[in-house]
Amino acid sequence: MKVRKFGIGDAAFERSPGQDDEVFTANLVDERHGGPITVGYGRYGADARIDVTLAVDDVMVVLEGRLSVTISSGTLEAGPGDIVHMPKGEKVTIRAHAQGAVTAYVTYPHWREAEG
Amino acid sequence: MKVRKFGIGDAAFERSPGQDDEVFTANLVDERHGGPITVGYGRYGADARIDVTLAVDDVMVVLEGRLSVTISSGTLEAGPGDIVHMPKGEKVTIRAHAQGAVTAYVTYPHWREAEG
Repeated sequence: MKVRKFGIGDAAFERSPGQDDEVFTANLVDERHGGPITVGYGRYGADARIDVTLAVDDVMVVLEGRLSVTISSGTLEAGPGDIVHMPKGEKVTIRAHAQGAVTAYVTYPHWREAEG
Repeated sequence: MKVRKFGIGDAAFERSPGQDDEVFTANLVDERHGGPITVGYGRYGADARIDVTLAVDDVMVVLEGRLSVTISSGTLEAGPGDIVHMPKGEKVTIRAHAQGAVTAYVTYPHWREAEG
C-alpha cells in the first residue's frame, strides 16, 4: 500500500446495509487493500436515522451538518470538526438534523467484514 | 469504553516528539483507554514541516488549512474535508501551507507506543 489522498468527489456512495433511511457509505480503503483499517465518507439525508450495534471500533469526523448520537446514557450532538468515537460493542442511534450531514470515518478492523 | 464526542476545544496540544517545527498533537483516545486505536487532533503552524516514517497506519482528515504530503512518487495536496491515508512503513514529509492546518487523526495501532 502507499500513501493516498481522497476528497469527497472520490466517494461512490452506497446505501448502508440493512437500513431504510438515507444513510450512505463510501469505503475508500478497506479489506480489498490489505491493510488493517477501513477509511471512507458517510452521507446522511435530512433527518436520516440509523441504529447500529458496533461490530468494530468506529471513528466519525463530522465534516458538514449535524448529527445526534444516542446511547443508553444520553445523546451527544456533533457538528463540523467534531470527532465521535464509538467503541466495538456499543449500541447507538445516529440521527442527522434537518440539513443532513457528511462524515469521514475510520474503522478497525474492517466494518464490512465484521458485519458480514 | 463508551461512546465519546470531542471538539477541538477538548484538545491539549503537545509538540510532536522529536520535531523542531510548530507541529502539535493532542491524543483524545489512546493506549490509556484500552481500545485498539488512537484518536486525536493535530495542529500545524504556518509552513511547519515534519518528516515521519510511519510506525502505524495513520489517517488524517484535514479540518482547516492546507497540507502538502510528499512521498517518493510525488506530492499530494490536501485541504478541508480531504482524507490522507498513510500506511505503516511509508516515509512522508508533511508541510503546512502559509495559513497552517488543523487535522483529526486516527491511528492503528497506537502511534505513541509504536514510536516509543
